[in-house]
Amino acid sequence: MSWDSVFQALGTASSETKLGSAPVALGFGEASPETKAAKNLHNFFTYVAVRVVIAQLADTTPEAHKDLMEFVDRHSLNDGDKFCAALMRESPNHKTLAMRILEVRSAYCNRDFEWDNLERLAKKMADEANTKIMRDYLLETSQVNNDNEK
Amino acid sequence: MSWDSVFQALGTASSETKLGSAPVALGFGEASPETKAAKNLHNFFTYVAVRVVIAQLADTTPEAHKDLMEFVDRHSLNDGDKFCAALMRESPNHKTLAMRILEVRSAYCNRDFEWDNLERLAKKMADEANTKIMRDYLLETSQVNNDNEK
Repeated sequence: MSWDSVFQALGTASSETKLGSAPVALGFGEASPETKAAKNLHNFFTYVAVRVVIAQLADTTPEAHKDLMEFVDRHSLNDGDKFCAALMRESPNHKTLAMRILEVRSAYCNRDFEWDNLERLAKKMADEANTKIMRDYLLETSQVNNDNEK
Repeated sequence: MSWDSVFQALGTASSETKLGSAPVALGFGEASPETKAAKNLHNFFTYVAVRVVIAQLADTTPEAHKDLMEFVDRHSLNDGDKFCAALMRESPNHKTLAMRILEVRSAYCNRDFEWDNLERLAKKMADEANTKIMRDYLLETSQVNNDNEK
């Protein structure tokens, strides 16, 4: 992905975030990084809710399960709200499915998703990934140096 | 995106999450939804760090700024760790840039990113989006009914 398309995806106007002492223009459009990340999570929660409802229907209501699977095959889940809005309008039966997905994603976001765990995991990932990137590079260049010395 | 490709993107083995009383297989591979979301945030933080470093260099070090901009044009930021690993290996100057990006993303994740705000915004978004989807649908169908009655 080019820088231009990244810029485009996240908007072009500027906002600010603090890093160290100097505020830095980040160009997230009107939205803060937190808003942008929340929007991504929002779409992710819709995806999770669809998965949950599909799993529940598989055991209880084969016909509704088939309807939802077919709809999912034909519609992108990248924009969760767009997906739900389209599902509402497909048929009365699909509308019932859409209402259930809305309910499940709200419950998941408000109750089941482990927010503290997300923060803990992301911080751990940042530390471990940095260590791994530096270690891999050092091992690789040591290897080259050893080979040169042979 | 088809259901299959969503499954593929998130792994195929099964994990569980609780929703209501029944545990539901979600198919997130080895990873929990929290881990998957943390991984996405991790890539997002790399993107933010690159933006921050580019903004800092623009004012202070035009040559390094040009180097980084050119590198970003040629390399995807979708996988942040892969991007940083490649940047480390481009040249000694690029290695310095990579070290700075690693440092900035760690500081951003551990100190500057507003985790509480993320949770608050995502929950607000879930509630507001649900309300909007239902309201839009109701207004639309009321309109149709009104038109039919004319």
